[in-house]
Amino acid sequence: MWRATVLTLYPEMFPGPLGHALAGRALGRLWRLETRDIRAHALDRHGSVDDTPAGGGPGMVMRPDVVAAAIDAAEKETGPRPTILLTPRGRPLDQARVRELAAGPGVTLVCGRFEGVDQRVIDARRLEEVAVGDVVLSGGEAAALLLLDACVRLLPGVMGHAESGDEESFEAGLLEHPQYTRPREFEGRSIPQDLLGGDHAAVRRWRRAAALRDTRLRRPDLWAKYVAETVDKPAQTE
Amino acid sequence: MWRATVLTLYPEMFPGPLGHALAGRALGRLWRLETRDIRAHALDRHGSVDDTPAGGGPGMVMRPDVVAAAIDAAEKETGPRPTILLTPRGRPLDQARVRELAAGPGVTLVCGRFEGVDQRVIDARRLEEVAVGDVVLSGGEAAALLLLDACVRLLPGVMGHAESGDEESFEAGLLEHPQYTRPREFEGRSIPQDLLGGDHAAVRRWRRAAALRDTRLRRPDLWAKYVAETVDKPAQTE
Repeated sequence: MWRATVLTLYPEMFPGPLGHALAGRALGRLWRLETRDIRAHALDRHGSVDDTPAGGGPGMVMRPDVVAAAIDAAEKETGPRPTILLTPRGRPLDQARVRELAAGPGVTLVCGRFEGVDQRVIDARRLEEVAVGDVVLSGGEAAALLLLDACVRLLPGVMGHAESGDEESFEAGLLEHPQYTRPREFEGRSIPQDLLGGDHAAVRRWRRAAALRDTRLRRPDLWAKYVAETVDKPAQTE
Repeated sequence: MWRATVLTLYPEMFPGPLGHALAGRALGRLWRLETRDIRAHALDRHGSVDDTPAGGGPGMVMRPDVVAAAIDAAEKETGPRPTILLTPRGRPLDQARVRELAAGPGVTLVCGRFEGVDQRVIDARRLEEVAVGDVVLSGGEAAALLLLDACVRLLPGVMGHAESGDEESFEAGLLEHPQYTRPREFEGRSIPQDLLGGDHAAVRRWRRAAALRDTRLRRPDLWAKYVAETVDKPAQTE
């Protein structure tokens, strides 16, 4: 069974939204979620987990020794496994990494709080630093919940066969095409004609063109990668 | 008071993690969170909110008329306000947009589920499409929670003065510098010397150099923007 272990100062935030809907129905059956309170690994009797930043400045930084103790205790139980620190300094999460994580044994997530985690424990424990959105959060917990949601839906058996996501956004380096459903007319707006005729080739062509157009207009960054990978490459090897 | 309204098929997912820690302590005092069950706006007695995709394919698509009814009912209560659909097809969320939203009256968030929301209601209600990470979720709820966490921490009074985040990641288009705290030695690793001497100018220089180096190495995309905005521009205007 796929296992997630979350190291956090707020174990009560979990499973949170993952206790409901798709992920919630599979929880305990197709995946497991464990939390570990970082505060339980504090080294003094006050339960201190943080201290002031070296060099001064606002806020508090999580101590490397406390975070290391929590990571080491978790790893003793779980064995080696991708161990991710959620931080705005990390590599942006993408669907390719989500697929890899979902295909593996599980993941250990370390949630920072305050001004962040001492860099030395990140280096010493070779934590994979991952960012979710170019935003700053009050802690890693909301990012951890999002990452887990993205992974869990891909686990075998979680989505029904009818929902399987092969055509969805980012799968071919493109955004997904727009979707339409009933009613046929909505406030004077119709469903595009090509989607209505029952001509499967016309549907495929319309969707493909829409995915290309929207990726180019909305995500020039993805578009540049897509062009480099699918258009430029064959030309170079010929 | 800053107000968030979330339209969702899973109101029970809220406030979830936002009921704890920084956001939770401020909830009801410095910000309000309301949910609206999209299913309550279904038009038939079965409570149908979705139907099969026009043109075929897996999964279900949320009906435009049902989603429009939920949006219109919410807007009647809240007045005009940024209304965001969380979707992988959207513009990637960044800290600049988070700052704008936090400075405004609040936000209405529409959470899609299944294969997405009919494009016609997105167009007709001019929904702002926002993506959080280049990943596909089981629904918009985890992204909504993350967006709200990022906004709420910026509301006046939520963070203490000592935590105020002026030097944090993305504020100047750069990643934040690494952080260090006690103990002075951790598993043979020291805190960088420049942070320890009490020389404020040396601290500033070290942090600035580290932020530049890490942004260049870790986020070539941000680095290119930073260079274009801070280095190229003055040269062009001279």
